Amino acid sequence: MKRKVCVVVTSRPSYSRVKTVLTALSKNPNVEFQLVIAASALLDRYGSTINFIEKDGFEITAKVFNVLEGENLTSMAKTTGIGILELSTVFDNIKPDVVITIADRYETMATAISASYMNIPLAHIQGGEITGNIDEKVRHSITKLSDIHFASTEKARENIIKMGEDPEFVFNTGCPSIDIAADILLKPELDFDLYKKYGGVGSFPDIRNGYVVVMQHPVTTEYSESKKQIEVTLEAVNSINYPVLFFWPNIDAGADGTSNGIRSFRENKKSDKFHFFKNMESEDFLKLLYNSKCLIGNSSVGIRECSFLGVPVVNIGSRQTKRERGKNVIDVDYDIVQLKNAIDTLLKSGKRERDFIYGDGKSGELISDIIATVPLRFHKTLNY
Amino acid sequence: MKRKVCVVVTSRPSYSRVKTVLTALSKNPNVEFQLVIAASALLDRYGSTINFIEKDGFEITAKVFNVLEGENLTSMAKTTGIGILELSTVFDNIKPDVVITIADRYETMATAISASYMNIPLAHIQGGEITGNIDEKVRHSITKLSDIHFASTEKARENIIKMGEDPEFVFNTGCPSIDIAADILLKPELDFDLYKKYGGVGSFPDIRNGYVVVMQHPVTTEYSESKKQIEVTLEAVNSINYPVLFFWPNIDAGADGTSNGIRSFRENKKSDKFHFFKNMESEDFLKLLYNSKCLIGNSSVGIRECSFLGVPVVNIGSRQTKRERGKNVIDVDYDIVQLKNAIDTLLKSGKRERDFIYGDGKSGELISDIIATVPLRFHKTLNY
Amino acid sequence: MKRKVCVVVTSRPSYSRVKTVLTALSKNPNVEFQLVIAASALLDRYGSTINFIEKDGFEITAKVFNVLEGENLTSMAKTTGIGILELSTVFDNIKPDVVITIADRYETMATAISASYMNIPLAHIQGGEITGNIDEKVRHSITKLSDIHFASTEKARENIIKMGEDPEFVFNTGCPSIDIAADILLKPELDFDLYKKYGGVGSFPDIRNGYVVVMQHPVTTEYSESKKQIEVTLEAVNSINYPVLFFWPNIDAGADGTSNGIRSFRENKKSDKFHFFKNMESEDFLKLLYNSKCLIGNSSVGIRECSFLGVPVVNIGSRQTKRERGKNVIDVDYDIVQLKNAIDTLLKSGKRERDFIYGDGKSGELISDIIATVPLRFHKTLNY
Amino acid sequence: MKRKVCVVVTSRPSYSRVKTVLTALSKNPNVEFQLVIAASALLDRYGSTINFIEKDGFEITAKVFNVLEGENLTSMAKTTGIGILELSTVFDNIKPDVVITIADRYETMATAISASYMNIPLAHIQGGEITGNIDEKVRHSITKLSDIHFASTEKARENIIKMGEDPEFVFNTGCPSIDIAADILLKPELDFDLYKKYGGVGSFPDIRNGYVVVMQHPVTTEYSESKKQIEVTLEAVNSINYPVLFFWPNIDAGADGTSNGIRSFRENKKSDKFHFFKNMESEDFLKLLYNSKCLIGNSSVGIRECSFLGVPVVNIGSRQTKRERGKNVIDVDYDIVQLKNAIDTLLKSGKRERDFIYGDGKSGELISDIIATVPLRFHKTLNY
Repeated sequence: MKRKVCVVVTSRPSYSRVKTVLTALSKNPNVEFQLVIAASALLDRYGSTINFIEKDGFEITAKVFNVLEGENLTSMAKTTGIGILELSTVFDNIKPDVVITIADRYETMATAISASYMNIPLAHIQGGEITGNIDEKVRHSITKLSDIHFASTEKARENIIKMGEDPEFVFNTGCPSIDIAADILLKPELDFDLYKKYGGVGSFPDIRNGYVVVMQHPVTTEYSESKKQIEVTLEAVNSINYPVLFFWPNIDAGADGTSNGIRSFRENKKSDKFHFFKNMESEDFLKLLYNSKCLIGNSSVGIRECSFLGVPVVNIGSRQTKRERGKNVIDVDYDIVQLKNAIDTLLKSGKRERDFIYGDGKSGELISDIIATVPLRFHKTLNY
Repeated sequence: MKRKVCVVVTSRPSYSRVKTVLTALSKNPNVEFQLVIAASALLDRYGSTINFIEKDGFEITAKVFNVLEGENLTSMAKTTGIGILELSTVFDNIKPDVVITIADRYETMATAISASYMNIPLAHIQGGEITGNIDEKVRHSITKLSDIHFASTEKARENIIKMGEDPEFVFNTGCPSIDIAADILLKPELDFDLYKKYGGVGSFPDIRNGYVVVMQHPVTTEYSESKKQIEVTLEAVNSINYPVLFFWPNIDAGADGTSNGIRSFRENKKSDKFHFFKNMESEDFLKLLYNSKCLIGNSSVGIRECSFLGVPVVNIGSRQTKRERGKNVIDVDYDIVQLKNAIDTLLKSGKRERDFIYGDGKSGELISDIIATVPLRFHKTLNY
Repeated sequence: MKRKVCVVVTSRPSYSRVKTVLTALSKNPNVEFQLVIAASALLDRYGSTINFIEKDGFEITAKVFNVLEGENLTSMAKTTGIGILELSTVFDNIKPDVVITIADRYETMATAISASYMNIPLAHIQGGEITGNIDEKVRHSITKLSDIHFASTEKARENIIKMGEDPEFVFNTGCPSIDIAADILLKPELDFDLYKKYGGVGSFPDIRNGYVVVMQHPVTTEYSESKKQIEVTLEAVNSINYPVLFFWPNIDAGADGTSNGIRSFRENKKSDKFHFFKNMESEDFLKLLYNSKCLIGNSSVGIRECSFLGVPVVNIGSRQTKRERGKNVIDVDYDIVQLKNAIDTLLKSGKRERDFIYGDGKSGELISDIIATVPLRFHKTLNY
Repeated sequence: MKRKVCVVVTSRPSYSRVKTVLTALSKNPNVEFQLVIAASALLDRYGSTINFIEKDGFEITAKVFNVLEGENLTSMAKTTGIGILELSTVFDNIKPDVVITIADRYETMATAISASYMNIPLAHIQGGEITGNIDEKVRHSITKLSDIHFASTEKARENIIKMGEDPEFVFNTGCPSIDIAADILLKPELDFDLYKKYGGVGSFPDIRNGYVVVMQHPVTTEYSESKKQIEVTLEAVNSINYPVLFFWPNIDAGADGTSNGIRSFRENKKSDKFHFFKNMESEDFLKLLYNSKCLIGNSSVGIRECSFLGVPVVNIGSRQTKRERGKNVIDVDYDIVQLKNAIDTLLKSGKRERDFIYGDGKSGELISDIIATVPLRFHKTLNY
């Protein structure tokens, strides 16, 4: 009998990260693949990730609306509570043999609790990483609820084992987001019109002579700061002599601050240099990055995919602190001078050396193969 | 300004365990003490722990009803989800500076998530222990959400640090349940009528010439087995020539099985030797244990308090597997022969040597002192 | 295409009431029958109605656990809130063409809101009755959310129309509970041993020379009174010279009071005359009533089925106030003297004249036929 | 002792409607006023009504976040379920003597259920009206849960009584929204710059020579149609030779359709004639209406306040069908020709005759006086 493997996707970045896992699972002859879409991945104002998922040909097993509006810390907790109420019903209906949860966003805890409390073996992608930000609590807490671990780096695998997990169930598979980056390299040329199909706000500047990309998320612990932080970045990139392709932030406490900062900049400056995107398919986004002068912001894509691709990155603030990184990254504070200097340096230096810390581009297949055959259990003990 | 310290109590055994912490906190001049009572601690059919708490003179800051009926795994998950919805409202109203959560029952995860998601520093009593049962997932997962750790043994403290917690925030305070046991020793004589005031079902046998105590909970991972397991125990204790004081199990998946087993035994045997209690104040319960011939079952009280008191214990099955234990314990399977032999051995051997693994009886004061002064933070990183 | 008709059953009395509707729907060739079991109908301690339903051969489409423990007014509200969360997911999954909700228990509001808010046509069984108790609010409020009405009496039908409903969608079908009573008359002889199979607490007195039946529920508005009220009844029936078959009350605010009253009576009196049942299949219950000397309490069965069957009834207190009744009923207060006198009168008078206010025994078929063919709509306006 | 009167406000239009009630209650010496703000009234993207409320000097007793994102029918049901969970906790904490709920938005049902299930007397403002839209179900259903009724017109009062409510508890107080309109007449001159302080999107056209106002909400039963409907209106008003002041729609199923229609119009036409507002204080809004050439759309303000003020109104579609209206209104379908003709007619005809169907401008005081003194009850019966 086929093993029923259920993946719960709750956001746009999670989907991008595991897309090759989903593809591999849906083709795996030993797997009955179940896909649950939840939280902001369903919502229009966070880019309707569900539409991309359906366009990519995946069949949705269940949808779970659980985002409680408010964008404050209390509503993040409550969103997680509602997620548990809803996901436990879904699991009860579709009876998966194993559930896969992704990374460390707050609402992924709902997946972890529902599955583990219902004695369903739980697998976790991208545990064990040290990043220094608030997501660590959720990330490591999910590790302790999980039975099977798919770490993205060797060091992450070691950390998971140190935390007391049985090495037999901890695998360094690399990060599946790198798989997509690997595909980009097969046909790296940018179709300069592609990005127009994504709409967005602002003129479409001519990017054929180079451009920079900006992606900056609010930082949960500092959410009152998020408006100020985005203003520093906007001021710095406004002074660059290249077009600026700007991506909208994640849903998170603080997202309102970031959004407001972007909106008032847009209304005050009305610069033709800027274009604002809500969302982009990950392949197109990576191709855009690969052909850009540099990426500016605090997205993990700068640390992971860009190291594999050799794209220069200015990483701002604490969001990626402590994450393992390649030689492509310059780190700066939310400081206008530091930030401008770093951008200047990278704009002069051009492409960087590639790095394979986060995998070699075959992670999706690997995870799919392991999950189809690994012994399943939902009972474990500290391995000390 | 006084530090606002909030303790969330969700069940009868949790209350017993931390009573001396609550007393110390309520007297601590540097603390504004907030007490939230939730889940089964509020419910009549689990012994109305709330009544004992009020009788003990504690003021209740808020009550949270969150137990969804069903006593299956899905309802345990949903109870936790509802707990998050409700507790986050409570924390939003009473704005604690730090929240204390206790041990590892499934619904304590709601306290941990609500507090940590709301950026409220979280302290955890009784983390780090290796027990081999399903509670480990919850216990260690809460450790990873917690900022301050009050371990009950030296080994537990070491385990928490191994899991990546900062040693500066990990304290071996002993287990506060031992504090109550220590008080018992000051005046250990049993008032043989005390137990009549607790009512319960069955005759009140004369216990002045010795008696045994039974307390057996369902084991979550084996909940379909719980009826069979209690039947083995009932058969074994039915053959003992001493009165049997039998305590009702916890609310947990499987509780219905255990309860049904007890009820049909009661109706079929109608033995005058048995008395069935729903609940007892912890001091009275410990005094009853101290004066008993032995304790039979799978309660952690047999491992903790009984080792401190030197009470002989027959520990049945997997529920306490791997927990550190003293020389007072004989371990057996759910096997009628093993069980009878172990009981015989202990009935012959009498009182056992005392042990101080779980503390020396001053834990409540120690925890209260530390929580009033420890630096508070809600942001941490793996300490590797 | 068959019309998908979904019935939501939330309690033991609701099931008994609509059993013949379910049977008719499951045999109706134009209907795809969906049966959702929710709330106390799923719970062991309210008699595991689900087991009876499955034994009766009905297939369950979905189960919804939504009872929040507490048995106070707040938990009744919250149970309804959880019911909406869960039922809306169920309706989203099974996509009924029309939903049927039954009577007026508080949690049936969850069915009404979920269906009507999701633009699913809603049918209501047993609206329009005037009873004088707190259930009227829920009953009439559901009428205003419902598109199709199956009234049990002509007067109820008129009331629904007066409330502004379109007469075309208001049907006097009689009460389906009468259908079962009608079946009883075909083979009315009591198998005197039948009731032993139901277990329960207390000896099994010899009932071959007559017996009385007691069924008394707590009254929501007076829930603190519920203990006192049951004590009056217990005292009165204790003085009767016939065996007393006593039925356990519904889940409702106040149920704890009633239960406690019964329990302490049981422990203090230990009378051999009493037998306590948790539950009974409705046919067996009606046969028991038909052959009894009288029914004492405040159950609606005394007003409905007993009028059809001609069974003498002492109806106590406000719970059935204002309900249309036949000549079989004597009404009394919670007053020991009144109560004893009424019992005496009925014990002397014997069987009563039958009445057909609540239908002639063909209601289930009628409702099934109408629901399969009535035009469906979810949009209406006050018909004034 | 002062009577504790709690009002629950869940949206921008509800706040506008009852503002003078809130003012009167907060000044009433016999009332302890409790104000609960919930649902979309708290949310940034629905105009942050909470900010206006605080600016108006009202103290907030509690905030309730309960909007589940999704903007589909299932999420409307679930939002109501969460509302019950949260509001019952609030009522349990603040223990009002009477709760006031407003009008007929779907989520107001949560207020009605929480209060009535907790035996708190419930008062309803603006029941009894016949409007022909889907809101009738909620409106009349709340009437049946309510104990005290404040109808806005004589006909509404009669309808409530016909539905079986006791006339002693049904008051025609007029609609409190008219009170604000009455104040406008004291100083009707428009400060032509006032509207700039509200920001919004689009240029600020010169409105000194006349302008029209548009406010069109999605219609729940036709939510897939909402985009098409707004497009008709946009096309029609685009051809008018006056500036167009356009107001953003309510949160409701369909709001995404309406919003998308507005956004694409805005991007394609980039007309200088249009200005788009998110929100406006009701006094400023009414003054804007009073001085406008006409109001176009489907807002109830066109029926109520505009009749009192004599402002010409083109009312589109089914949303206000059957509502009592004055001579100021021309009704049309979503038909471009009809719509243009109606606008032309009104632009030529100028101000209309005033009407007092919805009150004379003293409703707030009247409601406050009655609620402070009316006998309170939570138990009623059909008055037939």
